[in-house]
Formats: sequence, C-alpha cells, structure tokens
Amino acid sequence: MNERAAGPEITKLIELIARLPGLGPRSARRVALYLLKRQDSLMQPLADALAEAAARIEACRICGNFDTLQPCAVCQAEGRDEGLICVVEDVPDLWALERAQAFRGRYHVLGGVLSAIDGIGPEELNIASLIQRAQNGEVREVILALNATLDGQTTAHYVADQLEPLGIRVTRLAHGVPVGGELDHLDDGTLAAALRSRR
Amino acid sequence: MNERAAGPEITKLIELIARLPGLGPRSARRVALYLLKRQDSLMQPLADALAEAAARIEACRICGNFDTLQPCAVCQAEGRDEGLICVVEDVPDLWALERAQAFRGRYHVLGGVLSAIDGIGPEELNIASLIQRAQNGEVREVILALNATLDGQTTAHYVADQLEPLGIRVTRLAHGVPVGGELDHLDDGTLAAALRSRR
Repeated sequence: MNERAAGPEITKLIELIARLPGLGPRSARRVALYLLKRQDSLMQPLADALAEAAARIEACRICGNFDTLQPCAVCQAEGRDEGLICVVEDVPDLWALERAQAFRGRYHVLGGVLSAIDGIGPEELNIASLIQRAQNGEVREVILALNATLDGQTTAHYVADQLEPLGIRVTRLAHGVPVGGELDHLDDGTLAAALRSRR
Repeated sequence: MNERAAGPEITKLIELIARLPGLGPRSARRVALYLLKRQDSLMQPLADALAEAAARIEACRICGNFDTLQPCAVCQAEGRDEGLICVVEDVPDLWALERAQAFRGRYHVLGGVLSAIDGIGPEELNIASLIQRAQNGEVREVILALNATLDGQTTAHYVADQLEPLGIRVTRLAHGVPVGGELDHLDDGTLAAALRSRR
C-alpha cells in the first residue's frame, strides 16, 4: 500500500495475517479490520495468548505433542498404558483421539507423512525416535493411526517395516475410517469404533 | 477439549482464533498448529504486531480512519483538497481508494450502512459528524463512494437528503462500479475511471 493510507503498523499486521493458512490479502484485511474494531475484547487478548504460547509452548521431547509441560501432560499422566503407543501424523490428530476418549496409552507424533512430491523422507519425520521408544522393552504394541490417504498409508507401511524386526505387535485403525478421509474430520464415535476393532 | 490434551493455553488460543471472521473451530486448529510450528518466525511477530496495533491504533476523530496518528495521516496530509470529502462505508474502502491514487481530497468513514434487518439506523453511523464537517464553509462537494448494494444505495440517498439543505454538491461514483459489487473488490483502473466520471 502506498502513502501510508493504512499506516505501516496496519500494513505489517495485514501482511502477517495473510501468511496464515487459508487467508489471503483480502481476508487478511477483513480480519485486521474486525480486530481493529475489537481492540480490547479480542485484539489484545489474542496478542497475549499468542505471546504466551510462543514463549511457553514447545514440542514434547518424548512424543512431539505441543504443551507448556516438558514432557507433555499426556506423557506425564499416570495410569496410561506404557506398553501402547499410538502413532499419529500431527498434533491435531492426537487432540482428536483424546477428544474421543477411546485411547489410554501414549502417543508419538511423526510431524508429517512421507511424500515424494514434497520431498519429505524418513529423516524429516520423528521415526528414529519412535523406533528408539519401541526398543525400551516396555512397549508391546504400536498403533499406526495415520490418515487413510495415499501418503499416510505409505508412511504406515514404512513404519511397520521398521518395527517388524523388533517383534512388536503393529496394528492399524480398523475400517470405519472413511477411505480418503482425515482423522481430524471424524466424529468421536467413529474414532472409538475404529480403535476398538483395530487389526 | 477435555483432559487438557491440548492444554489450556492452546485451547484458549484456538477459541480466540475461531472468533475471527471466516474461521471456524477446525480452521482455527489448523491456524494454531501452523503458528506453533513457527513460533519465532510468525507467532511472536504476530503477537507483537497485534499488541502494538491494539495499543497505538485508534479511529481518527475527524474522518474515522484507523491510524496511530490523531488526526490520521490522510487528514494531516498537506496538499489534499479540503473542499472535497469522499464518504465511504468502512476503512478498507478508504484503503482501496488510496491504492487507486485517483483521489486527493479528504475522507469520511461512515462505519457501516443503514440496514433495517441489522437494526442499524442513522445514529449508529458517523453521519452527524459528516453534516458538521460539511457545514464548515470550506467543503464544496461530497462524493458518496458507497458500495453498489441495496443498503449502500439506501444510505447514499439518506446522506444526500441530509446534505441537500446545505447547498453542497453531492456526487456519486460513476457507472463502472459493477451493480451488486463492493468497492474493495475492484481493480485500481476501474476505481479511477469511476471517480473521473462521477455524476
């Protein structure tokens, strides 16, 4: 924008908002205007929440979940089955499974899936740390709860191959996950059913 | 979310993001994850930009534009025609006109349009302050650059009726603005043409 019609502060704010996924320059302007009209009720609280999250939240060194605790609350929680690790593509999948309240083991967040197109190989994902966790003697089953997409299933095959020599039971979510669908879209009942009848 | 799978800080952040226009709970989770993976490069700068904007930006007491200056940079700028006021519905329309670089007068932001459905009457808009500005003796023309929507044109009629007794020339943007379209969508050339052939 020229002549500081919007001022450098607003221009910068709009540019940052436009970098968020699903937002372009136009929707970023709309969001900025919406915030400017709600400076006390939304803009400042959002600034505080972002600053607090940026300062205090980090990836769990064990499972990769995001939390202010290190290790994360799920890894620290007592009464969860140490012998069961549920492998997910990313953190929102972990959130979805926790919302479903159907799993009481631990998690492992890969941080993505293998993708030849995007140039994502095994070393870009948290696979080595999963193998390491699986070798500690306590783990008896790894559930591969990856999305039912082509890349997700390719990744599941790869991880299963890596785990096979360890003699650990490797299972997958049962039918119930729609083909081509993503975990984070599913209702809690479907997720719970898929967990119960894992194969 | 239950069991603090996402933690109270992340849950609060997602709730605040979900209040932004065009974002729901799912897209808010996606945005939050995107930010958590870019804490230094995007999350903290966005927090800073929001905090600075919330603290320093306010509505111009003359025209209603948002700026850190009071009055705003456009109202303070020298060499702009004091006799010409361009009335717009909201601040992004002012930004769009400034980007087009086709107008060298002053602005007046109504802050919305009359709407029976939304219960927005003349007292909800910055119309009284416009009449006051128009009475200062210097103003010789008011351009009603309102959106070519039903509510926008209803508002234009109302404002024109209020200005009529003052003997000030009241004009509107020329044909060139697509019927049913909104100012903020237009390309600069169309906006410039519509300004030149105002009637």
